[in-house]
Amino acid sequence: MLSEFDLIKQYFARARPSRATLGIGDDCALLTPGVGAQMAISSDMLVEGRHFFAGADACMLGHKCLAVNLSDLAAMGARPVAFTLALALPEANPAWLEGFSRGLFALADAFDCELIGGDTTKGPLTICITIFGELMPGQALRRDAAKVGDDVWISGTLGDARLALAGYRGECALDPASLQLASARMHAPTPRVALGRALASGALAHAALDISDGLVGDLGHILAASNVGATLDADALPAGPVLAGQDRALRRRFSAAGGDDYELCFTAAPEQRAAIAAAAARCGTAVTRVGIIDAGRGLRFVDAAGAPLNLQLAGFDHFASD
Amino acid sequence: MLSEFDLIKQYFARARPSRATLGIGDDCALLTPGVGAQMAISSDMLVEGRHFFAGADACMLGHKCLAVNLSDLAAMGARPVAFTLALALPEANPAWLEGFSRGLFALADAFDCELIGGDTTKGPLTICITIFGELMPGQALRRDAAKVGDDVWISGTLGDARLALAGYRGECALDPASLQLASARMHAPTPRVALGRALASGALAHAALDISDGLVGDLGHILAASNVGATLDADALPAGPVLAGQDRALRRRFSAAGGDDYELCFTAAPEQRAAIAAAAARCGTAVTRVGIIDAGRGLRFVDAAGAPLNLQLAGFDHFASD
Repeated sequence: MLSEFDLIKQYFARARPSRATLGIGDDCALLTPGVGAQMAISSDMLVEGRHFFAGADACMLGHKCLAVNLSDLAAMGARPVAFTLALALPEANPAWLEGFSRGLFALADAFDCELIGGDTTKGPLTICITIFGELMPGQALRRDAAKVGDDVWISGTLGDARLALAGYRGECALDPASLQLASARMHAPTPRVALGRALASGALAHAALDISDGLVGDLGHILAASNVGATLDADALPAGPVLAGQDRALRRRFSAAGGDDYELCFTAAPEQRAAIAAAAARCGTAVTRVGIIDAGRGLRFVDAAGAPLNLQLAGFDHFASD
Repeated sequence: MLSEFDLIKQYFARARPSRATLGIGDDCALLTPGVGAQMAISSDMLVEGRHFFAGADACMLGHKCLAVNLSDLAAMGARPVAFTLALALPEANPAWLEGFSRGLFALADAFDCELIGGDTTKGPLTICITIFGELMPGQALRRDAAKVGDDVWISGTLGDARLALAGYRGECALDPASLQLASARMHAPTPRVALGRALASGALAHAALDISDGLVGDLGHILAASNVGATLDADALPAGPVLAGQDRALRRRFSAAGGDDYELCFTAAPEQRAAIAAAAARCGTAVTRVGIIDAGRGLRFVDAAGAPLNLQLAGFDHFASD
């Protein structure tokens, strides 16, 4: 039987140079912030049966639970530094732990983000990561900084993760290859860290956030915090490659209110269009203009011809839906 | 039905001056560390049915889940600054949320420690707090700093929390008043923040940690990290007021290997005895010398007369016991 301390030593403590002054194994980790830097901090908790299926692949889960936190840093424009991992496990299963830690550390290493501490306990499978990034004061991409006249931009594509969920649930028919492609977006989102850093350090964007609960709900947070409204072209929303093959109603619905996208939604002055396109190209991340910030409160959709649409969409709420 | 955002707004977002540059409501919180300060960071996850009884009083639970994290800062000698809270709840129950947030904020305010962000989701009741403290480089009380010849000290008293558990389980008979007194130690531990700060800032102690899984197991971490051993007087261990009325075998057992004590165990040079006693008196926290650090590996117990004892004790392991 694997003990708690053996478990940490075997799967989570690594013999490599550490950026932390003191890492795993004491009451606290010690981090020395960069001179003059602010710390950006975010926590996400993922629960089996709610954020991922029971029996989900451990390696993909290790990737995803860190990816959603890296996406929060990306949305602030912060550079990833370190994270803590608190893990409740029904049992200490070596195969699961090996897969989970492999997926976790592959992504952590790709973003040079170090595991510095945490907690393990027995319980229903629950994963809580708290992540730390750094950025210079004044650079953060906040939700309350959108300005009337700004363009609204989206990174990457939307809706394929939601389409995969619909496929799993039998809400729509997908051939196996399409389901696999779409589900990769659900299981292995790519945090847009480089784009977020470029937007923040170059002062290219005003407001930003990451789209986790669907564009409508999440952009709504920017609009409320900034006291502005927005008008979006529903047919300009960049549907994922699998969703792009579906009918228009589903395309509009899943790209506007899908969930689990982990793309950035940001607003920027029209004068920045060329600089944003160049920065996105350097990061290898597509960006699409989908609408404008205006003074009228709320979020409105129009079609490609500019005619108003009534899409009847809502963001995801963990306590309102099951 | 309370939505996720209403829940956060109603119970966890507070209209008061914030030390964070940006608090609850964005992708990340932003903290500006003190000039030259190190950040001490710790995460603890508490699971219903494992760390607390199903149906536990919400207010006491709010206290306890922050107290165990403050205790980690105390054990490093760090000053509390802020924390994040990730909460999985079976339902959004207003009475529970009111009690929990009341207990949480009462302790947070007492230690001037600010809630700056987190996550809420539906799931089996699970509470994960990540806490941030500050201290000056070189001041941290680490586990690997015990020296041969050091005294071993314990703050407060040990074993009453474990005795309360034994009472609940029917392992020993306690009258109602005794059970209530002992269970207060289980439900509402007092983090020894002022003592930890005094030991660290005055460079009075070498190694320290907080006793959460029982003295034997926890002191074992100091001994292993510092490559030293220790000899303790089993009868010098400061038993809690209720445990003190029990027979000697139970006193020794629960004070040496109880769990849920959240007292500090620290080592210090004998020349610091007077300074430590004075610092403890200023903090209003009792401290007791219970043994010495020696060169022979492992932990040995002797009785008050110095005769060796074989207590057969072990620390708590979340994956080895149920």
